[in-house]
Amino acid sequence: MSPAEPPDPSPPYYAVIFTSIRDAQPDDGYAAMATRMEELAQEQPGFLGLESVRDADGLGITVSYWATEDAVLAWGRHAEHLIAQQLGRERWYERYTLRVCRVERRHTFSRNTTGGFP
Amino acid sequence: MSPAEPPDPSPPYYAVIFTSIRDAQPDDGYAAMATRMEELAQEQPGFLGLESVRDADGLGITVSYWATEDAVLAWGRHAEHLIAQQLGRERWYERYTLRVCRVERRHTFSRNTTGGFP
Repeated sequence: MSPAEPPDPSPPYYAVIFTSIRDAQPDDGYAAMATRMEELAQEQPGFLGLESVRDADGLGITVSYWATEDAVLAWGRHAEHLIAQQLGRERWYERYTLRVCRVERRHTFSRNTTGGFP
Repeated sequence: MSPAEPPDPSPPYYAVIFTSIRDAQPDDGYAAMATRMEELAQEQPGFLGLESVRDADGLGITVSYWATEDAVLAWGRHAEHLIAQQLGRERWYERYTLRVCRVERRHTFSRNTTGGFP
């Protein structure tokens, strides 16, 4: 989900910040798995949205949003997701850090809806 | 700070997730301001680290980490930062969402230090 349609329920809800460095190889299966995991996440109870950016140097930040901590835990233990996690450690990621957070406040700005700026 | 040196104190601490879309223009002053804000943030009490990625489409995610919620609030009200925020709304950002979160758990993987993978 892009910020054009941000997940924006009232806090509190949960965010999982996944920061990674990967050593990209052509046809290493990463893109297909990433797409599949995004689709699968969207089917899970409590899924609110996902934002993901990776730059040319291989640094990526993906944030997924969830209604409850139980939803975060359930997604972490999903069988197909567990296989993807294992492949990630074996094949794709040099390093990653995963942080589970409780979103306490949020503020959105959009030039189009607020108007009045030069 | 890159994930090669992740901010990694024991939770709880705070994360500010700033997701933005910007309409990049050459010489619009954004890069200089972003660098200055990163330097300034590092001088603030309670600053733990910062990770930032922007892709070729203009979608960016920046996450800054702070020891306490008070440190987050103080940075949000810093005079020079307030000017940058105003310029951001006027000049640089089409849209952004800022979320203040309490980091409750974190897990780090590094292929080099865990070893044993193919």
